[in-house]
Amino acid sequence: MTEFTLAFQDKTPLYDQLYRYVVARIRSGELTEGERVPSKRALAEHLGVSLTTVEKAYGLLTAEGYLEALPRSGFRVASSLAAIPAPTPRRMAVERRREALDECFSTAAVDTSVFPFSTWAKLSREAVYENPELLQRGEGQGDWPLRDALADFLHQYRGVDCTPEQVVLAAGLEGIMWILLQLLPRAVFGLEDPGYGSLRRLLDNLGREWAPVAVDDRGVAVQALEASGADVAYVTPSHQFPLGITTPAGRRSELLRWAYARPGRYLIEDDYDAEFRYASRPIPAMQGMDVGGRVLYVGTFSRTIAPSIRVAYLILPPELLEVYHNRFDHASATVSRFEQEALCRFLTSGAYGRHLRRVGNLYRRRRDALCAALSGWGEIRGAEAGLHLLFTLPGREESDLVARAAQAGYRVRGLGEYCMGPDPLPGTLALGFAGLPEERAAKAVEELKRAFEQIG
Amino acid sequence: MTEFTLAFQDKTPLYDQLYRYVVARIRSGELTEGERVPSKRALAEHLGVSLTTVEKAYGLLTAEGYLEALPRSGFRVASSLAAIPAPTPRRMAVERRREALDECFSTAAVDTSVFPFSTWAKLSREAVYENPELLQRGEGQGDWPLRDALADFLHQYRGVDCTPEQVVLAAGLEGIMWILLQLLPRAVFGLEDPGYGSLRRLLDNLGREWAPVAVDDRGVAVQALEASGADVAYVTPSHQFPLGITTPAGRRSELLRWAYARPGRYLIEDDYDAEFRYASRPIPAMQGMDVGGRVLYVGTFSRTIAPSIRVAYLILPPELLEVYHNRFDHASATVSRFEQEALCRFLTSGAYGRHLRRVGNLYRRRRDALCAALSGWGEIRGAEAGLHLLFTLPGREESDLVARAAQAGYRVRGLGEYCMGPDPLPGTLALGFAGLPEERAAKAVEELKRAFEQIG
Repeated sequence: MTEFTLAFQDKTPLYDQLYRYVVARIRSGELTEGERVPSKRALAEHLGVSLTTVEKAYGLLTAEGYLEALPRSGFRVASSLAAIPAPTPRRMAVERRREALDECFSTAAVDTSVFPFSTWAKLSREAVYENPELLQRGEGQGDWPLRDALADFLHQYRGVDCTPEQVVLAAGLEGIMWILLQLLPRAVFGLEDPGYGSLRRLLDNLGREWAPVAVDDRGVAVQALEASGADVAYVTPSHQFPLGITTPAGRRSELLRWAYARPGRYLIEDDYDAEFRYASRPIPAMQGMDVGGRVLYVGTFSRTIAPSIRVAYLILPPELLEVYHNRFDHASATVSRFEQEALCRFLTSGAYGRHLRRVGNLYRRRRDALCAALSGWGEIRGAEAGLHLLFTLPGREESDLVARAAQAGYRVRGLGEYCMGPDPLPGTLALGFAGLPEERAAKAVEELKRAFEQIG
Repeated sequence: MTEFTLAFQDKTPLYDQLYRYVVARIRSGELTEGERVPSKRALAEHLGVSLTTVEKAYGLLTAEGYLEALPRSGFRVASSLAAIPAPTPRRMAVERRREALDECFSTAAVDTSVFPFSTWAKLSREAVYENPELLQRGEGQGDWPLRDALADFLHQYRGVDCTPEQVVLAAGLEGIMWILLQLLPRAVFGLEDPGYGSLRRLLDNLGREWAPVAVDDRGVAVQALEASGADVAYVTPSHQFPLGITTPAGRRSELLRWAYARPGRYLIEDDYDAEFRYASRPIPAMQGMDVGGRVLYVGTFSRTIAPSIRVAYLILPPELLEVYHNRFDHASATVSRFEQEALCRFLTSGAYGRHLRRVGNLYRRRRDALCAALSGWGEIRGAEAGLHLLFTLPGREESDLVARAAQAGYRVRGLGEYCMGPDPLPGTLALGFAGLPEERAAKAVEELKRAFEQIG
């Protein structure tokens, strides 16, 4: 094996060359079952590559079953090679993993089939063809016309009280969080429990401090918030994720009073899913109640238009605008200006409003179909708004339900996955319905039921 | 003035309502010159708004000359109101600030007039019309076809050694830094001094640790790097910003050895401007020399295509891929998928390569014209590559040169602006030429010269 020479000029990484070389030698029979291969260190020295390169190659070879580690040290060619399937190209591996389970119950699904794609395509084309000047750098905060249109839209639809000066655009919620974390660099974040896992992961990744804050039947409990030591609370008052609770006005006032009680306290209102409300009129955003400039309002088009539209927005209170300008003076916008222009046309032409009504009706029908299919089986909660509901089978283990659903071919998530503390409703699944067509609901629920009630 | 009532339902922020109210009363003569207005605290109490709201309004009114602060405390209507211009709409103010000085010497300029816009528009249109499925969520790392095309391109043009698996796309360098900071959460960053101010600001905004590392005539000095205590060095070996130095192969090997000496050490190679090299063949990226998997390679299309194209890329060493997948498992890509598709077609059709040659020739002519205009006046450095050069007038104060240039209508930057330690070349300006057409160079330099040599 030591006659192998690495092609340093080759495009393939060295570990991969080494991996392929060993695989080829095993398959051709030059290396036979049970034969001992050089130690990692010896091979690295011989080839003049780093130990890491050899470790990486041996790691892959062991993981894929070509090599096996010897009891004390060293490696040999595995003894049951007949069982090893031919290596699939790596490119395929990525694709296949995604298709494994049916994602129709995903809480993040968006049905793009009702999106007025030809209108969007036409506006996109016009946005590019008519505006070559959009190649040049725009305002870091986002271009004025879209910020203006968005301020109008949010006022009309969500009761948000702002001027375009307060609007900041960024590439998805990731881009918004990037700005928030720089605006509030010393803040301890209070995160709803249960709540978004992605936020927790993000703060952990960055080594930032956060505290869980329990959610009761009206949303974030102010006492828990006070006790948590957080300065900035990230809240979802329109439709708590994942419990589906709508925080009533009284609790909203309490939250605002909490923020006003000390300088440096802020509420980040994530208005996620607020466009979809089935049982009553939409409840205006908390931002519109804020007279003290302590609410930062956050939203995105990824759910209402399409997941690949990477435009999210942040409405800053006037008091934070100066801080924003100081810190982001030289920053560039993270959203394509052509996409900003297309979206602006989509909003101002009224096409977005029409789309929201249409897709709202579609999701209402899907919610109704899922509720009908589930009724009489377990308990349904949080189905008045948003794109998912909670479904409880008292006395059941969530992990068992999730495993059984997977065996039946469905990916579902247990409420516990979103909890930092104890699960407030054991035996509960968070079921999305935006990706579950009406005509499929009965069958999908039937299959879940069969899997859940099977013995053993 | 206390009869004023705020319209809490109004879309305008409260401070702005108050500001407008006071301006209107002054203009109508209801408040007269020299008249005392209520104290901030009294007014806040009376109106039932926060002190901050009144402070913000009074701040604006004072800044704009409507009110003046009284010697001890309190405010009165200013005594020379005739001199105050009518308030210009705020929307205009933003626009006007940008046009104040000629930015032809900007080191960040990109000439988009030679960009094959009609090709781009056509590819953008096709990317949208032919791919409605791109509305759905793509791979968080970026879509495979563009990553594949980019890996090929970087191999061919920059000697970068990677597979598409190693390519991560994000919305501009901001998006890339967002990922880097989460990948390396405990790292102390070593930043070139002089170097990018934006990087320093970003790390400061996030409260992250960094250390300045001096640059000598071959780039980052390894001894300085070792002494700085940094784990991760952010370097620009192709064309150091702003000194314009190209780090030779020997120094690159030393840097790699520094990284190999301890686990957790990495080099971030920012290959900014490397596409443009005038005196010799482009020097391959340091990434291609790295056998130990310690170089993270970073680049962007914002300079080679257009500032508004928000696509940047990060090439991870194989060793960091697993960390990346663990931390960013659920993250969405920050780049529009339609723009990814358009860019992919731009690369694979060969249009990007042709554009680079064309724009490279243009910038070469602009460099030549600027050098010719400056020759015989001061010292030119770092003009062999990239889109800016250093111009030194020994014995002159940079701040004086910058101020004189501004008086002549030009925005220029002194080298000191990029320095954390002492300025290594006092009397030096960083002059960009990508935004300075050949035919304008002589006149612009002439005007600078006149301003710089004027007495007084």
